[in-house]
Amino acid sequence: MAKIKIAYAPSVRRLPSYLHIIRQAQRAGDYYISGTIIANELNLEPIQVRKDLAITGIIGKPKKGYPVEALVKAIEHYLGWDEIHEAVLVGAGNLGSALLGYQEFQLHGLHFVAAFDTDPSKIGKQVHGVPIFSMDSVEEGIKTYKAQIAVLTVPSPMAQATAEILVRAGVSSIWNFTNTKLKVGEDIVVQREDLSSGYALLSVMLQKVKGRLD
Amino acid sequence: MAKIKIAYAPSVRRLPSYLHIIRQAQRAGDYYISGTIIANELNLEPIQVRKDLAITGIIGKPKKGYPVEALVKAIEHYLGWDEIHEAVLVGAGNLGSALLGYQEFQLHGLHFVAAFDTDPSKIGKQVHGVPIFSMDSVEEGIKTYKAQIAVLTVPSPMAQATAEILVRAGVSSIWNFTNTKLKVGEDIVVQREDLSSGYALLSVMLQKVKGRLD
Repeated sequence: MAKIKIAYAPSVRRLPSYLHIIRQAQRAGDYYISGTIIANELNLEPIQVRKDLAITGIIGKPKKGYPVEALVKAIEHYLGWDEIHEAVLVGAGNLGSALLGYQEFQLHGLHFVAAFDTDPSKIGKQVHGVPIFSMDSVEEGIKTYKAQIAVLTVPSPMAQATAEILVRAGVSSIWNFTNTKLKVGEDIVVQREDLSSGYALLSVMLQKVKGRLD
Repeated sequence: MAKIKIAYAPSVRRLPSYLHIIRQAQRAGDYYISGTIIANELNLEPIQVRKDLAITGIIGKPKKGYPVEALVKAIEHYLGWDEIHEAVLVGAGNLGSALLGYQEFQLHGLHFVAAFDTDPSKIGKQVHGVPIFSMDSVEEGIKTYKAQIAVLTVPSPMAQATAEILVRAGVSSIWNFTNTKLKVGEDIVVQREDLSSGYALLSVMLQKVKGRLD
């Protein structure tokens, strides 16, 4: 697991939602947007929104708010979403296929160049325009495409062995959708996506509504 | 959007990962587990783990740590995962199908009783053992099954109209995987799952590794 720590992880997590709203304002022709408007749209406190946006280095003007175009650029630059990042997807099952077709990723510079699977019926075909190759060629494929990001959607028991191949092939980051905590070198960025996290939040809110929690 | 606020959202988000590790210790026959062991496993600070676990009402013993069985029960009870929650899935595309097959949800009491889709080739079939019905019967289906939770995986432009049907049918919570911010009554719990959030974290870590951020 990488030793890279993110000081403002909850803030970083919220930035894409802000970006979504700010882009809507941009399309509507607005020049300025206030933190309060963003906060109301997302059911957050305005002070939270202003603190979160401050990590990108931008400060709003009193009464006017943030200049929309500069705000989009500041967020995109902070996230590195103003550059294209070549990515491969490893494991083209249901979840993998859904990620290949997730259009918002293209807006974020995430560009899937290839996907890999063990299923012979998938190999040689395309999913959402991305070619599927044999898992045997994953190392070669990553080197050829110089992919930095690998999205890992293989079955969990295959996760660690697959991750080791990915690292050997030279990826610098793994977006891990499996249940396995990967053991890789400290210089490799690993972001584990746990669908149970969101379900835990939903569950706690449901408990509150039912009056079981304060 | 529901007005229910979760004071410890980042802590709640981490509870499923803790549960995963604690259950492993349970299967290995351990009676106690320390916060430090959990922290090391997840690359967190021990103080963070102890604070997070405290929200479930359990306190560890000095030197011994937490009694494993009581800790599992405390987390499950806090999350309401010690009860079965009937759920429907609305939109059985790639992402929806992946969620129907996500085995960990069964451990968390999430029980999919039915799924709904507009595609005639899917209706009448089963995906991961869950029957697919016509979208026209979603209101009737929710009432029949008394489902509390609806998992929304329809295309984003259909999200708001579909959510209104779900609410009319009586669901108390919507797990929203679309890009649309749903406008529903304040008594309805909505948890929006934004795959871009995790990608934002990965991106920031990648920027740090490259030395573009401090």
